[in-house]
Amino acid sequence: MDAVTVPDLRTRLKAALSVGEDDVLGAALTCEQAADVAEVLPLFSDEDRSRIIYALPARTAAELIVMLPESVRGDVVDDLDGGKITEIVSELPPDDATDVVSELDDARTRQVLQTIEPAKSDQIEALLRHDEDSAGGIMTTDVVKLPQDATVRDAVHHVRTYSPSEDLHEVFIVDAEGRLSGSVELRHLVTSPRDARLSDLADPRPHVVTVDTDQEEVLQQMRKYDLPDIPVVNHRGQLVGLITHDDILDVAGEEATEDLYRMAGTDPAERETSSVFRAAGVRLPWIMGCMAVTTVTGLVMAWQKSHFSLTVYTALSFFVPMIAATCGSSAIQISTVVIRRFAEGDVSRGGLIRVLRRELPIASLIAIAAAVVSAGLVAFFLPLMIHRLDPGLGAVIDPHRIASAVGAGMASAILVAASLGIGLPFLFRSLGFDPAIASGPVVTGLNDVTSVLVYLCLASLIMAN
Amino acid sequence: MDAVTVPDLRTRLKAALSVGEDDVLGAALTCEQAADVAEVLPLFSDEDRSRIIYALPARTAAELIVMLPESVRGDVVDDLDGGKITEIVSELPPDDATDVVSELDDARTRQVLQTIEPAKSDQIEALLRHDEDSAGGIMTTDVVKLPQDATVRDAVHHVRTYSPSEDLHEVFIVDAEGRLSGSVELRHLVTSPRDARLSDLADPRPHVVTVDTDQEEVLQQMRKYDLPDIPVVNHRGQLVGLITHDDILDVAGEEATEDLYRMAGTDPAERETSSVFRAAGVRLPWIMGCMAVTTVTGLVMAWQKSHFSLTVYTALSFFVPMIAATCGSSAIQISTVVIRRFAEGDVSRGGLIRVLRRELPIASLIAIAAAVVSAGLVAFFLPLMIHRLDPGLGAVIDPHRIASAVGAGMASAILVAASLGIGLPFLFRSLGFDPAIASGPVVTGLNDVTSVLVYLCLASLIMAN
Repeated sequence: MDAVTVPDLRTRLKAALSVGEDDVLGAALTCEQAADVAEVLPLFSDEDRSRIIYALPARTAAELIVMLPESVRGDVVDDLDGGKITEIVSELPPDDATDVVSELDDARTRQVLQTIEPAKSDQIEALLRHDEDSAGGIMTTDVVKLPQDATVRDAVHHVRTYSPSEDLHEVFIVDAEGRLSGSVELRHLVTSPRDARLSDLADPRPHVVTVDTDQEEVLQQMRKYDLPDIPVVNHRGQLVGLITHDDILDVAGEEATEDLYRMAGTDPAERETSSVFRAAGVRLPWIMGCMAVTTVTGLVMAWQKSHFSLTVYTALSFFVPMIAATCGSSAIQISTVVIRRFAEGDVSRGGLIRVLRRELPIASLIAIAAAVVSAGLVAFFLPLMIHRLDPGLGAVIDPHRIASAVGAGMASAILVAASLGIGLPFLFRSLGFDPAIASGPVVTGLNDVTSVLVYLCLASLIMAN
Repeated sequence: MDAVTVPDLRTRLKAALSVGEDDVLGAALTCEQAADVAEVLPLFSDEDRSRIIYALPARTAAELIVMLPESVRGDVVDDLDGGKITEIVSELPPDDATDVVSELDDARTRQVLQTIEPAKSDQIEALLRHDEDSAGGIMTTDVVKLPQDATVRDAVHHVRTYSPSEDLHEVFIVDAEGRLSGSVELRHLVTSPRDARLSDLADPRPHVVTVDTDQEEVLQQMRKYDLPDIPVVNHRGQLVGLITHDDILDVAGEEATEDLYRMAGTDPAERETSSVFRAAGVRLPWIMGCMAVTTVTGLVMAWQKSHFSLTVYTALSFFVPMIAATCGSSAIQISTVVIRRFAEGDVSRGGLIRVLRRELPIASLIAIAAAVVSAGLVAFFLPLMIHRLDPGLGAVIDPHRIASAVGAGMASAILVAASLGIGLPFLFRSLGFDPAIASGPVVTGLNDVTSVLVYLCLASLIMAN
């Protein structure tokens, strides 16, 4: 019952490929699960990938294509001929088929849609029109709809005849105009007499989403109400599709990836390309932004420098990285907590007050602790830095003043950073930006500017006395 | 069909609470869904929370307790009397009941387990023994088991009689020793004749996990094979429980939170406490670690300082924040991509080579671009910094040399940072640490040390010529 382990399958496929006969390859693949082959396929060359796909049974090949990482799927689909793609698209439920078709250029899309059966072609064309991050973009149109006067027997007959290809958890009741009017779980079909009316068994107010609901909102609803699936209606209330447990688990993964990538100063778009140039292009704007704002930090240091003698400035400069990194880290701690709460749908309007009430006291405790420890570190290490390493500096520098400056600067800068860490995610969200960028490199660079400014201003006050 | 919006419910509850009669409150709550009440409950005082829970129907109150954030749940459960807790635990399926019982101290746990029905008490005691992050810790014991010679009629009878409280998707066949020998989807029960034998309809090799499988591994399996649920067996192969779609969606959220929090230098443990002292205690070690390693950066600067005149050192110091932040950011970009691939189960053994082959070229492109742009920024801004702000410095500083030093330092330091960004997640994982800490504040601080060291060493070479 154990899953086939990956290295084994890879070795066996390599051996089968090296024989050079497609029968041998086919025999090696007959019993494999699509998910296992999908895991090793990216390890093979383009040519071998195609050979493996042509050697697989049609159904397995179709499932495999859907499971490939997006960066690989595009390349693989490009290498298949029209006949194979038609075969694959025919095997798949409409939502997965649409994902495959969307990898094709316009000419090939038209060709494939003309070859497959018209009903499916219509479904795919309808799905292609939805934004891929909306409920319409992730739903399947494979949903069991029954009229309001249907019985359990009718439902059983329908399930047996049309056998929807996705996991089936419930059937839906629609009125004469196709508007959703209720849902019946499969377990009630199992345990009810065959001539019971569905409308008597139905939950009359199932949770629904509309086709243009954002997938993150769909995820939050399904998580909040523990739903195994959720029906999708259009703006006239007509049932047009269904989002199932596996779709939403993928969405949960995608949303987490998106937040993580944005917080790291990149974008999930880099996963869709195998070109290192395009991937670098996704990351570079954030790196450039970071350099631009840290140039401002340099200007701040140059401007503040005039308040100090060169020797005192030099001693102060040794602790700029500590101030910048520590304040940056405590801002990231806070903004990440806030961003995660947004993603979980946990901070509603008025949530800013609740967040402030918890985060400001935490930040104050951290500011006090960091001030004491950083002052201690300076008092201990600065004499080593100046006496052992450059005896000339010792005469004009008072380590305890520098320690006070670092401690005071650290505490104040952490409080400023904390305020930004709380405020910026809320600000970005209300401006329509992704709040995740508040933990990213540009905001961290901005944090450097403010924390170094606070540190050197306080230092100039303390040194002046 | 729309979900009740949160502000409305809160306002209505406030009004009902202010009347002071529990009948009014009860009437206001009868039609509410547990998930909606759970969303607003944290906004009320401890006393009002208890009043709301006592006013709810038992089943809704039970569901609500399960849906509360962990930091709130503990406090709420503490305020309920033994009778109410027994009532709540009796309403819940074993896995959720165990989560509630685990909030109690030992004495109250014993009291509750003695009051509820013995069968459930045994189930809860068994579940309490599992690690809460293992398959055993998230599974329910509410699973439909049938003997190998059972028919569809037997299965239907069983489902009707015992009516498991969780969503039901499939039933399981066990042998005389209770070992799992197959599974039958509900849809096959619906469409098959009543006297068909389950063993003829069964998938004989369903995917399984064992009780001590880590929940992240369970998530990866269910995602990989698109499973709506997965049976859990003990080490003798006996079926002991089931993990369902809603459990695994929660796990997906928890795992994403864990990665995000670790990368930000904190831990999901801070969510379980309402004490700001304990929350600060979770974050502080990372802040302290960051200060410790950036003290080393200060030592590096002090040591390198002796290679330069004070004026040249001062000019170089203006760009330390830029070098540190930019290299830190590009390391975080890379380590985040690697960490995310780990979480998705996407990097198997030998994956290091694949990651290197993609990430090193990307890092090289970024290093070249960053070197050119940073040198340009220095060449443009340094004259402004020295002439306008401190005319005395102008005579002894050659901006083009400093620009070369920054550009060369930037490129080299980015390549070093990239190597750490790739290597450290792999290293941490193989040492048994969470690789997510490779994007955290301590590693970012370490990155400061190496990038500033590389920058100043190269600068001393360039200045010496």
